[in-house]
Amino acid sequence: MGTKITSLQNPRIKEMIRLRDGRHRRKQGRILIDGVREIERAMQAGVLPGEVVYCEQMCDAAPARELLARAEEGQVELIEVSGQVFEKLAFGARAEGVVAVASTPQASLAELVLRENDLVVVLEGVEKPGNVGAVLRSADATGAGAVIVADGRTDLFNPNAIRASLGTIFTVPVAEASSRETLDWLRRQGYSIFAARVDGSAVYTEADFRGAAAIVLGSEADGLTDVWSDEGIEALRLPMLGVADSLNVSVTAAVMLYEAVRQRS
Amino acid sequence: MGTKITSLQNPRIKEMIRLRDGRHRRKQGRILIDGVREIERAMQAGVLPGEVVYCEQMCDAAPARELLARAEEGQVELIEVSGQVFEKLAFGARAEGVVAVASTPQASLAELVLRENDLVVVLEGVEKPGNVGAVLRSADATGAGAVIVADGRTDLFNPNAIRASLGTIFTVPVAEASSRETLDWLRRQGYSIFAARVDGSAVYTEADFRGAAAIVLGSEADGLTDVWSDEGIEALRLPMLGVADSLNVSVTAAVMLYEAVRQRS
Repeated sequence: MGTKITSLQNPRIKEMIRLRDGRHRRKQGRILIDGVREIERAMQAGVLPGEVVYCEQMCDAAPARELLARAEEGQVELIEVSGQVFEKLAFGARAEGVVAVASTPQASLAELVLRENDLVVVLEGVEKPGNVGAVLRSADATGAGAVIVADGRTDLFNPNAIRASLGTIFTVPVAEASSRETLDWLRRQGYSIFAARVDGSAVYTEADFRGAAAIVLGSEADGLTDVWSDEGIEALRLPMLGVADSLNVSVTAAVMLYEAVRQRS
Repeated sequence: MGTKITSLQNPRIKEMIRLRDGRHRRKQGRILIDGVREIERAMQAGVLPGEVVYCEQMCDAAPARELLARAEEGQVELIEVSGQVFEKLAFGARAEGVVAVASTPQASLAELVLRENDLVVVLEGVEKPGNVGAVLRSADATGAGAVIVADGRTDLFNPNAIRASLGTIFTVPVAEASSRETLDWLRRQGYSIFAARVDGSAVYTEADFRGAAAIVLGSEADGLTDVWSDEGIEALRLPMLGVADSLNVSVTAAVMLYEAVRQRS
């Protein structure tokens, strides 16, 4: 498996550590995938890492060993590093001893292939990668056809979004676009468009989610922009029966997506 | 407003800083409430702080000023501290310049007063305070009658739970108890009990949530214990149509709670 890298000055390692920064991800066209399950789901979805970096002492659990074996079979380069080097690549407490580097997957509207009557989630202006990841989990669970990040204020393949999605970011079709492009695209595809708004005129259960339907959610701080007040877009609200006036965007997304699943079943 | 405290060695401040630790919260019988909205909701719910600590430079926004004025009207002691002292009391990036100290609210089953056909959420063995807080937001939004933390592995009034709940922890009736006590109590009250399990025999939309209903959710790592496999308890699942096999507990709670609201409307 080659020589163990123990120096933070190693040029390849230095470039990889830079990938924790969004600017460098854009520049290098590569992303970091942290975690066994996350790397596995990427590989299953055809996102083959260029290299998998591992720390021997930290990845003695069976799933990590099996992942390394599979990566090696798949001609992925394995790079062993010291604990100190690994820490600079990995994220927080969930470190499982393996981090992969891969080319940033394509994520454009033009490449999305939808099924008939698919469900689509649009997230506009969302800032927190954790929210993107949480919505992806719900989109995966409800069999949604795509998640589109519109006017995103975080890059889609932010390591925290990958982590929070448990790797479903690689299995759910995703795209990044402007809000305007997204709206035009949804219209061309003949989608019914439902905007989640705290002051929506209808309760979400009154909507008909059985056809091709897009659920559009805004950032927690600012809600949706006026792009989504256009003609023909239905503004939906969740009943709010308590003292608080808003819900987390990932909770709103899940409730509406599962209502769609209920109506479709 | 008295003298500004600038020393971390001040004995009252030292005791307050200790309240960031659960052991000291239990010992002192007091909690920390961080944030304007959180303190306001506590006061509205009758949880009057013993003191409100503020940092002049950090709380120049109108809501913080208004809160200080209201607290002073309510005979709450205001204590001004330096930025350095404040940082030791407050939590992370959302610091709004005010932290309150209050007696730990009572949270026993015996004190819960439920309405007819109320909805109750039981969280068993949950470890992450953020999840407790997120479930409280959904419980508030859906008008649930109570949230019971059963066999909790985090203290209910953990500062992060308070924060994540946006203060609804003070407005939604809450209780802590063992799982066994909780089950017995629900039965005495005549509740239908629904256990959320990934392998539940029925889909949650098939359940009848219109009467007095308790939704029971387990920890993300371990699910529910056998206490909740007892006779008469219906195990419900959410459809999982993707590659992942679980959802965040707060998402599961919200989807089931909103299905109950739908059935009841």
